[in-house]
Amino acid sequence: MSDLFDFGKDILNAQPFSALLGAELTAFEVGSAEMTLALRDEMTQQHGFAHGGVVSYLADNCLTFAGGSVLGDSVTSEYKINYVRPAMGQALIARATVLSSGRRQAVCECKVFAVSEKGEILAAVAQGTINKVDKTG
Amino acid sequence: MSDLFDFGKDILNAQPFSALLGAELTAFEVGSAEMTLALRDEMTQQHGFAHGGVVSYLADNCLTFAGGSVLGDSVTSEYKINYVRPAMGQALIARATVLSSGRRQAVCECKVFAVSEKGEILAAVAQGTINKVDKTG
Amino acid sequence: MSDLFDFGKDILNAQPFSALLGAELTAFEVGSAEMTLALRDEMTQQHGFAHGGVVSYLADNCLTFAGGSVLGDSVTSEYKINYVRPAMGQALIARATVLSSGRRQAVCECKVFAVSEKGEILAAVAQGTINKVDKTG
Amino acid sequence: MSDLFDFGKDILNAQPFSALLGAELTAFEVGSAEMTLALRDEMTQQHGFAHGGVVSYLADNCLTFAGGSVLGDSVTSEYKINYVRPAMGQALIARATVLSSGRRQAVCECKVFAVSEKGEILAAVAQGTINKVDKTG
Repeated sequence: MSDLFDFGKDILNAQPFSALLGAELTAFEVGSAEMTLALRDEMTQQHGFAHGGVVSYLADNCLTFAGGSVLGDSVTSEYKINYVRPAMGQALIARATVLSSGRRQAVCECKVFAVSEKGEILAAVAQGTINKVDKTG
Repeated sequence: MSDLFDFGKDILNAQPFSALLGAELTAFEVGSAEMTLALRDEMTQQHGFAHGGVVSYLADNCLTFAGGSVLGDSVTSEYKINYVRPAMGQALIARATVLSSGRRQAVCECKVFAVSEKGEILAAVAQGTINKVDKTG
Repeated sequence: MSDLFDFGKDILNAQPFSALLGAELTAFEVGSAEMTLALRDEMTQQHGFAHGGVVSYLADNCLTFAGGSVLGDSVTSEYKINYVRPAMGQALIARATVLSSGRRQAVCECKVFAVSEKGEILAAVAQGTINKVDKTG
Repeated sequence: MSDLFDFGKDILNAQPFSALLGAELTAFEVGSAEMTLALRDEMTQQHGFAHGGVVSYLADNCLTFAGGSVLGDSVTSEYKINYVRPAMGQALIARATVLSSGRRQAVCECKVFAVSEKGEILAAVAQGTINKVDKTG
């Protein structure tokens, strides 16, 4: 496992909310990140699908990690997400890629798939801006 | 309490993920919704602030409820969110308003405030499209 | 007319594309901007309404000016727009407001109205991030 | 040239604003569209780059065409765009792809490149929702 992957896992482990949900960093390279989240009943909304907030959490976090792979410690500045299909199944997988990056920010895209016996089905697509954490205030 | 408020609370109660987080519908009228979420340590990210996924969840859900106040049972089709300040304190309050609506969809905006002894501080702003649940498939 | 208004008009006059379309800065204060664009037939799309690109241009530019009112010379980093109604009539009016700002960026919202004998009708809403032009590269 | 390509060119020719700018539909297949726009001085902003409104116009229109390739006559409902680099050179090329589609709407992404002697350089990325024009009101 690379130093970068270790760095990523350490950041994720330092996020109590990610521990509450159970997200895992399943791939992490310069310019991309993949996160997996096992779905539990307590993550659903009133129609039995994964709650949009869960899908958004995973997209947002995966965008941040993709940006962080080129910027270091980072936060999401903004993003937009389109839910394209109800998400259900055993797990969600998010894959994010850096589209462009500079010294202080990166623009990334993310696709979130619902994983079931039918395979991976696209559930949401997101695009956003990741900012390097500014230590100088 | 109005019938609409009852309808809104019933929908929220039917969302297991909202129960897990502890969100409350604190105001609900035709054209607007307010949700409150008490912050707990397990909702933070690596810098000790509320995780973006928590802020997004609340914005997304509050947008859906605002849209649902004019459309009936609804889902968020898409939204964008700008995080404008780290969110910390005792609670988050989201307030969403319908900007425009038709038979099948509504465009809404939402502001999320962090509540602490300093008062309410704007933490995020969101804008999105809410779609009426289409029973005809 | 204030120095700020003069500054804004100078910037707008320095934009050849704004001159091509004929946009005017009709109000400009710290934290807000208003732009007006007389509609001409050459600004329409295939259904006879103002082309989305025209509406977007005005929203984008008005967002930049609102941000620039607190940041100085600025550019739009990103924005999202929802078209809520076909835009037609004599003119478009865009009004943008700063929601939050720091040293280097501002988050702004903008509403675009179509002006006809029926009055002002909301045609689009936008939200975006404005960045101060970074002279240091 | 396919019937679809002819249909696309007819729609573009029916847009006076696209004629004013000089946009061309340079590729059009089921699920994707490419548009090219020769840059002229009158399309710039105060720093000499293509105005954001020009880049947005092209992204918006190309998103609509990509969506229209699967939906028929369509309009953009909403989109978001990130400008990732100042756009300058001889032309802009936008390429849009359908990510997901249903009966009434499609979610599409678009990349806009600036073309100069250096080749194609990514200038902006966009994501949005395209709606089929609803003849039934």
